[in-house]
Amino acid sequence: MSFQARTLSMCVEVYVKMLSDSDNPVIFLGFSGAMIPAGMKKVISTIVKERMVDVIVTTGANAYHDFVESLGFYHYKGSPHVDDSELRRLMIDRIYDTFVDEECLQKADSKIVALAEKIRESLSGLPAISSREFLFELGRFIDEEGLEEEKESSFLWNCWKYKVPVFAPALNDSSIGLSLTKHYADFVQRGLTPLIIDPIKDNFEIYKIKRDAKKTGVIYIGGGVPKNYIQQTAYLERSLLGIENSGHDYGFQITTDRPEWGGLSGCTFKESLSWGKIKDDRNFVTCYCDATIAFPLIVKAVLERMGEKLKSRKRLNINL
Amino acid sequence: MSFQARTLSMCVEVYVKMLSDSDNPVIFLGFSGAMIPAGMKKVISTIVKERMVDVIVTTGANAYHDFVESLGFYHYKGSPHVDDSELRRLMIDRIYDTFVDEECLQKADSKIVALAEKIRESLSGLPAISSREFLFELGRFIDEEGLEEEKESSFLWNCWKYKVPVFAPALNDSSIGLSLTKHYADFVQRGLTPLIIDPIKDNFEIYKIKRDAKKTGVIYIGGGVPKNYIQQTAYLERSLLGIENSGHDYGFQITTDRPEWGGLSGCTFKESLSWGKIKDDRNFVTCYCDATIAFPLIVKAVLERMGEKLKSRKRLNINL
Amino acid sequence: MSFQARTLSMCVEVYVKMLSDSDNPVIFLGFSGAMIPAGMKKVISTIVKERMVDVIVTTGANAYHDFVESLGFYHYKGSPHVDDSELRRLMIDRIYDTFVDEECLQKADSKIVALAEKIRESLSGLPAISSREFLFELGRFIDEEGLEEEKESSFLWNCWKYKVPVFAPALNDSSIGLSLTKHYADFVQRGLTPLIIDPIKDNFEIYKIKRDAKKTGVIYIGGGVPKNYIQQTAYLERSLLGIENSGHDYGFQITTDRPEWGGLSGCTFKESLSWGKIKDDRNFVTCYCDATIAFPLIVKAVLERMGEKLKSRKRLNINL
Amino acid sequence: MSFQARTLSMCVEVYVKMLSDSDNPVIFLGFSGAMIPAGMKKVISTIVKERMVDVIVTTGANAYHDFVESLGFYHYKGSPHVDDSELRRLMIDRIYDTFVDEECLQKADSKIVALAEKIRESLSGLPAISSREFLFELGRFIDEEGLEEEKESSFLWNCWKYKVPVFAPALNDSSIGLSLTKHYADFVQRGLTPLIIDPIKDNFEIYKIKRDAKKTGVIYIGGGVPKNYIQQTAYLERSLLGIENSGHDYGFQITTDRPEWGGLSGCTFKESLSWGKIKDDRNFVTCYCDATIAFPLIVKAVLERMGEKLKSRKRLNINL
Repeated sequence: MSFQARTLSMCVEVYVKMLSDSDNPVIFLGFSGAMIPAGMKKVISTIVKERMVDVIVTTGANAYHDFVESLGFYHYKGSPHVDDSELRRLMIDRIYDTFVDEECLQKADSKIVALAEKIRESLSGLPAISSREFLFELGRFIDEEGLEEEKESSFLWNCWKYKVPVFAPALNDSSIGLSLTKHYADFVQRGLTPLIIDPIKDNFEIYKIKRDAKKTGVIYIGGGVPKNYIQQTAYLERSLLGIENSGHDYGFQITTDRPEWGGLSGCTFKESLSWGKIKDDRNFVTCYCDATIAFPLIVKAVLERMGEKLKSRKRLNINL
Repeated sequence: MSFQARTLSMCVEVYVKMLSDSDNPVIFLGFSGAMIPAGMKKVISTIVKERMVDVIVTTGANAYHDFVESLGFYHYKGSPHVDDSELRRLMIDRIYDTFVDEECLQKADSKIVALAEKIRESLSGLPAISSREFLFELGRFIDEEGLEEEKESSFLWNCWKYKVPVFAPALNDSSIGLSLTKHYADFVQRGLTPLIIDPIKDNFEIYKIKRDAKKTGVIYIGGGVPKNYIQQTAYLERSLLGIENSGHDYGFQITTDRPEWGGLSGCTFKESLSWGKIKDDRNFVTCYCDATIAFPLIVKAVLERMGEKLKSRKRLNINL
Repeated sequence: MSFQARTLSMCVEVYVKMLSDSDNPVIFLGFSGAMIPAGMKKVISTIVKERMVDVIVTTGANAYHDFVESLGFYHYKGSPHVDDSELRRLMIDRIYDTFVDEECLQKADSKIVALAEKIRESLSGLPAISSREFLFELGRFIDEEGLEEEKESSFLWNCWKYKVPVFAPALNDSSIGLSLTKHYADFVQRGLTPLIIDPIKDNFEIYKIKRDAKKTGVIYIGGGVPKNYIQQTAYLERSLLGIENSGHDYGFQITTDRPEWGGLSGCTFKESLSWGKIKDDRNFVTCYCDATIAFPLIVKAVLERMGEKLKSRKRLNINL
Repeated sequence: MSFQARTLSMCVEVYVKMLSDSDNPVIFLGFSGAMIPAGMKKVISTIVKERMVDVIVTTGANAYHDFVESLGFYHYKGSPHVDDSELRRLMIDRIYDTFVDEECLQKADSKIVALAEKIRESLSGLPAISSREFLFELGRFIDEEGLEEEKESSFLWNCWKYKVPVFAPALNDSSIGLSLTKHYADFVQRGLTPLIIDPIKDNFEIYKIKRDAKKTGVIYIGGGVPKNYIQQTAYLERSLLGIENSGHDYGFQITTDRPEWGGLSGCTFKESLSWGKIKDDRNFVTCYCDATIAFPLIVKAVLERMGEKLKSRKRLNINL
């Protein structure tokens, strides 16, 4: 087939290649958009379990919605063709064709506030942690207080279990960020130093992962911060270590954006080459498709092709 | 005219309305995408000077490129149809059809590292500031060390001069963030506490602006963090203060994204209604167009319609 | 799943519904874009064989490329990232990422010129036929002179065999049209009346199919003339027969266009409701996706769900 | 400016170039989509009057809506956010955000039926005319029976007046086609030969224009048949005359489609190069924007730049 059916199959080929490379490339997945509310939780959890990803960068919202579901608060099939004033009255929040009960969100929020306070109390000295550390604690919280039957499908829980670091570089820009703001307001009012999320610490941590990796592969679902953040790890390595040939080795992206508007979200891998963010553009593919269609197909195809070989793939084992 | 020529004219109407409202709504502008490299600097600076915007939320990259130009390092007309390997060899970075000299960027980076160190040294106690505070200092730096002839067009300088707060909620995810990482690595190695960017402090600051505003208007150029961040101020107010009717009052967005993929970047104002992020959807318009075409037309039209009336508009005067 | 994975599954449901309706709706498929060069030939042929479609409306180009392949002239995997001047020199024509040998096309063209002449000679009186009649003859030509091993996958041949009418309302706007122009120029020069393609005869024929159908279902792959042409059959019935409730009963479309530009190609089924082109909008779905990805998935899913039941579906049996 | 503001300005440059070329290139304009209902009538009429276009290819629908307005039946500002069932009940047809009164359309339809009959009666011998001839008669009809105050803005009337040929290669696929079908059904029932629209005659006519032109320039608003039809004139010349270097010399397109779906509507000029449809790709530009925004800006800018020079441009003077 031609056109985007072709690029879809090329994504499978690139993914198989990066998983089969004997240099064991570190694989970064960046995903933005409301992927967890959309039902992509099990797909992400599957690639964590099956050793198909080593590092995740996402939005605070996706981490939040995964957390919410682990408490038994679900997303519901809705419709975009509704009266949103009526939804407001009923306290139903809409994500395109998907509904969520706002009262459940409020219950989840209060647990995050409590968790922030608990983490704060455990810290002596400068109470600043990276978003990765916070999300690791959230994974642990799911293990301790999440519904038993929801754990297996929670990507935060799986990442916690398999020590796959999860970064949310703009954690403040999400409902988790709002709960942290409640915590902040509360502590400031009481004259206390609140828990600080230190995003530059995140930068330093992900830089170390990149620095220690012989090779790297990247997967972008959507654009925004997650894509740019993984892109810039290559640039960061060059600027901190002066390493010239620091670009990523493999990659594919699934996007509905396009290059002509000039933004990073829609940019091609070819453009990244000029910045040295990729090494060359042979092992890079872009598939223009809604990720809810394309990504499960790619993952399933790779699972079928790789089979038992995945078991021998080494997990990233790094102290950050 | 119909279709997007119509929505373009409706944006003008909504903008005039929010500027004319005697309750003096606080106007938030969120812009993402490579708007400064694209040449939008003077348009943004114009609306700052002309009292057409009160708060800006943008990406670290846009702040960075504005800063770079204030030092006399420019963006050049290029082409997307080039050999990017050749650009790499020549150290020219490409942003779709626009080129930038990487050596210039490196000079700019070292100035940011120095600025971070200087700010760090000025702080006693917890060395944590918001991105807004950092960008205010960057504006002051431009005033002190930028090229005289570039100041008038720099939006950071204008925002510093007119005290228009600029937030970059994901400042880490940008070249400014990379320079802060250099500073971080250096200080950590020397056993010192580096400057901390505290993004939850940003949340608290923007929350206070929203809280104290009788009404609010929003302008979104593109999606990503800037759009979501302004959207969530309404949600934040509700969750922190329990204020029910906290949605924005006016708004228009210029986007090339679309709602069907389910992401926040492409979502309609109607969807925001279900979340209570807007009050009702009468005074909200979406124009589907590249912002480099649409936004200058809108600003010019509003300037012509409002004329001298803009002079009487009160600037936001708030201590954060 | 949400978003376009959801609409994809809804297309399957609507397709199953229209195939299962005991009123045996006549199913119209309109497809535009380079679907045959893209490799969609077997999928279209499959739904013809399996009684999943009754009438086809497409572009002259798709009919032409099906014909070309039946002669053993294939489309090749290429790339959009090539030097097109070099391709020109080599007489390779490019369709995005797909190549075709122009010399082969020229051989195919001469066969169409000869067929037109042969049809012309067989006609006495007014030598005007519909595009449907011409394409039926092209199907017969494939049966007689196409490669044996190519027939099974040719949609024109299958449509000829199973008497599924194929309309190309803009047959002139294609390589078939160019060959007919050669025939025209030649005959005019010789003072003879050439074969005439009478597109209003096509209108009358498809109107009769619509008129005699108790119910109708529509499938649109892409927009352009094929979509509009099937849409307007409902309008045609109203204007010729004064039948008020003449809209289609079921439908789904796969498109990458969008409504906001105002064109018919991207219009929603809801808009069609205002024109009376559909009866109501309950059994209508739009999936935003490249058809090379979405349509094979839909067809496979419907085949699995319907199984043997398809065999009992009655074929359209109409004298035009 | 960068991105699409840049390509917009490049369209102006290419347009000025083709108008200034001393070889007086024949300029073909193809436009699809509901441009006339959208309010683009005066812009098209302006370029006809100002000698900025020599040949027009469009959809039957655009010709139809121009005709309808010349009778005093207008398009109205509506909204896409309406109850379309209610519109149906009120016999209001919706074109995205624009409304039209269906009863007015019916009055217009009956005039087309009468015109077809009148033309039919005037013909002896084979009653087959090209769509161009039919639309020329429609222009004359507007001159004779249209509202005096509407003529100046009617593009069909201006094309009739200034002898700018208008082709609608898929005239059958429009409300004009529906009226011609009424005429056809009526005549067939009465045992008479109806008026025949001969689309291959159109091909032959436009081929003669291309053949006699020293150079050619092309403007595409949208895709579909109009774009492909003008593209293929270059191919037609090669296949009929064996002329190798038959591609167009200048061109720009305004589109919201994109190349990655593989269709002709979204294809780049670079792809056209492989087919020999353009000579080289230096003087060709694509602007990604809604044409209701971009085209009026381009026309106004060209008018300002060219000024009085346009008056000396020779009109196409050809007997078809």
